[in-house]
Amino acid sequence: MLNFEFKNPTKIIFGKGQIEKLGNEIPENAKVMMLYGGGSIKTNGIYEQVKNALSGFEVVEFSGIPANPEYEILMDALKIIKEKNITYMLAVGGGSVIDGVKFLSAAALYTGDTPWDILKNAIKTEKGLPFGTVLTLPATGSEMNSGAVITRKETQEKLAMGGPGLFPEFSILDPEVVKSIPERQLANGVADAYTHVLEQYMTYPIGALLQDRFSESILQTLIEIAPKIMKDPADYDAAANFMWSCTMALNGLIQKGVPTDWAVHAMGHELTALFGIDHARTLAVIAPSHYHYNFEAKKEKLAQYGKRVWNIQSGSTEEIAKAAIEKTVDFFHSLGIDTKLSDYTSAYEGTAEKVSERFTERGWLGLGEHKTLAPADAEKIVKMSY
Amino acid sequence: MLNFEFKNPTKIIFGKGQIEKLGNEIPENAKVMMLYGGGSIKTNGIYEQVKNALSGFEVVEFSGIPANPEYEILMDALKIIKEKNITYMLAVGGGSVIDGVKFLSAAALYTGDTPWDILKNAIKTEKGLPFGTVLTLPATGSEMNSGAVITRKETQEKLAMGGPGLFPEFSILDPEVVKSIPERQLANGVADAYTHVLEQYMTYPIGALLQDRFSESILQTLIEIAPKIMKDPADYDAAANFMWSCTMALNGLIQKGVPTDWAVHAMGHELTALFGIDHARTLAVIAPSHYHYNFEAKKEKLAQYGKRVWNIQSGSTEEIAKAAIEKTVDFFHSLGIDTKLSDYTSAYEGTAEKVSERFTERGWLGLGEHKTLAPADAEKIVKMSY
Repeated sequence: MLNFEFKNPTKIIFGKGQIEKLGNEIPENAKVMMLYGGGSIKTNGIYEQVKNALSGFEVVEFSGIPANPEYEILMDALKIIKEKNITYMLAVGGGSVIDGVKFLSAAALYTGDTPWDILKNAIKTEKGLPFGTVLTLPATGSEMNSGAVITRKETQEKLAMGGPGLFPEFSILDPEVVKSIPERQLANGVADAYTHVLEQYMTYPIGALLQDRFSESILQTLIEIAPKIMKDPADYDAAANFMWSCTMALNGLIQKGVPTDWAVHAMGHELTALFGIDHARTLAVIAPSHYHYNFEAKKEKLAQYGKRVWNIQSGSTEEIAKAAIEKTVDFFHSLGIDTKLSDYTSAYEGTAEKVSERFTERGWLGLGEHKTLAPADAEKIVKMSY
Repeated sequence: MLNFEFKNPTKIIFGKGQIEKLGNEIPENAKVMMLYGGGSIKTNGIYEQVKNALSGFEVVEFSGIPANPEYEILMDALKIIKEKNITYMLAVGGGSVIDGVKFLSAAALYTGDTPWDILKNAIKTEKGLPFGTVLTLPATGSEMNSGAVITRKETQEKLAMGGPGLFPEFSILDPEVVKSIPERQLANGVADAYTHVLEQYMTYPIGALLQDRFSESILQTLIEIAPKIMKDPADYDAAANFMWSCTMALNGLIQKGVPTDWAVHAMGHELTALFGIDHARTLAVIAPSHYHYNFEAKKEKLAQYGKRVWNIQSGSTEEIAKAAIEKTVDFFHSLGIDTKLSDYTSAYEGTAEKVSERFTERGWLGLGEHKTLAPADAEKIVKMSY
């Protein structure tokens, strides 16, 4: 097991009817900005619940944060935060809204030239403007971690940021929100959380027995609830397990003491930046090729995953590992998620080279758990994903 | 799944050579009281490491906190804390020392008549004197939770306390300490953590799929590492998994969203108070009888545990559930831990009645996950454990 540090101070308030507790979590006299996305919260009742819970606070609303939160739009919000002396933010949405609010949390207190530096120079935020979240879309785990990914349309870039100052102070997780989520986004949520676990697990054995079992627990739970949630998102118990699994998949716990990969995300982000493909679907496109390409380095963990998660008991390590990749592809397909780039765009030629070039430009010369995956490897993997 | 709230702000610093980071975690100018037990830290090198890491701080030492931390001794420490205006405490030890420091954390800021009230009236501590820990004995999980159990010799009582103000600010977990722990205490640590998980898991199914799997993960890991750690406590990977499993067994995570039992602890504490039997061993005495006595209510979870943790695949629910209890007893025996009260004392007659009387006196009329286990039931369970 590797040495590690772990601290996660976010307060989780989980369950039915918990949104009404919101007011108790925000400091009295706070000047609140409530941020949300495209307005789905106005049709599913969450907007009403949140507004009621915020009665007594001075609230400024900012809506229209899109999937893959855009720098330009967030800069508009930042202007209002400064003009109105906002002291607390409330993100009401999924990972995109919460990530956008994290950027604003950092940017509001940033004293450098331009907040873009926070992303470009990967500046760690030690202290941000405080914020809480009401989660409306289980997927990214952003509700209980301190990381964010921000997109800049004009340069077709998608960059990560974070720091210990960017944990939500609280997050309200009411599984009843799941029933109004469209099928496409439910599928994305399951695939996103599933791949988050794989990025922290599908490396090489390092004797971290408990972390491995926790990762496998999340994968098994997602496999178990996926068909239920896709069939009936009003199934409360399935929704609750879905929601909690997504949070636990990326709240830092399972990555402690183990090597992590994250190359699937690095390549996937480029596909979103270039083609606008849903984040989760880019992961489903890249992951199988990535595991085939890095088969020798990952086969022991692939086989452990095959045995424990997919119950494949017979065959050599190689055979079980290969079968495990196929099971993963089948699982994505069972969610209605395609796993080839050509399923999403006919303009895929040249993508692999472009991804490779971008990695080279950014100096990303060694990705993955061994820091040895070069831009040329990424090029081959993306090509295998066509 | 039940509604829940979860917040655990303790910073974990885990791994080899981490004790030297201590100084960074304590506020500058803090007046530190360093508390420890019987002096084993002076022979295994931990005392030296801690003292070196504390150079530059004003430090008062308080040693001699015994297993089952005693109220009278802690009151001596409290006097010094007040006389010397201590602003920060550092617990160097296992659960007893850490629990003792939690009591002091609460007592130092308590403004009522006598700190005994905190225990007697189960007063929740919202804010305590800040403290950190250096864990020397994996077992209780106290290093990452906000609860404590304190003993009062003169009245033969053992009572619980806690509150959100009693989380350690940080805990340093260096698995290298495990190699100098005597066999008896290693066995106790494994059995203690194992039973902690059972108390939060062996109830009835409530559709909390992920929590169940996390609990099973900890049990499986403890089963896997127990023979390794008993044979060779210098096996670093086994020690690291042992240590992290003990912490995760009682840091609050696996109990969220599920019913919990804790009747085994309630009865076990009485056996420690009456006979001085090691805490973990009292749990191993009570648990099997408790599960047999409450078999009908617990058989579904017992069978799930039998299948998933012990891989018992054939038989009816009842048969698998019964076999799972036997496997649990065998596991305790494999650690060298006896599971009958008569193995520890010949003066066991009358114990069951005494436990029952004490529960009645304290108004503990309904324990367990259904709050229906009456003193008369406890009497029968303790008698079954003779």
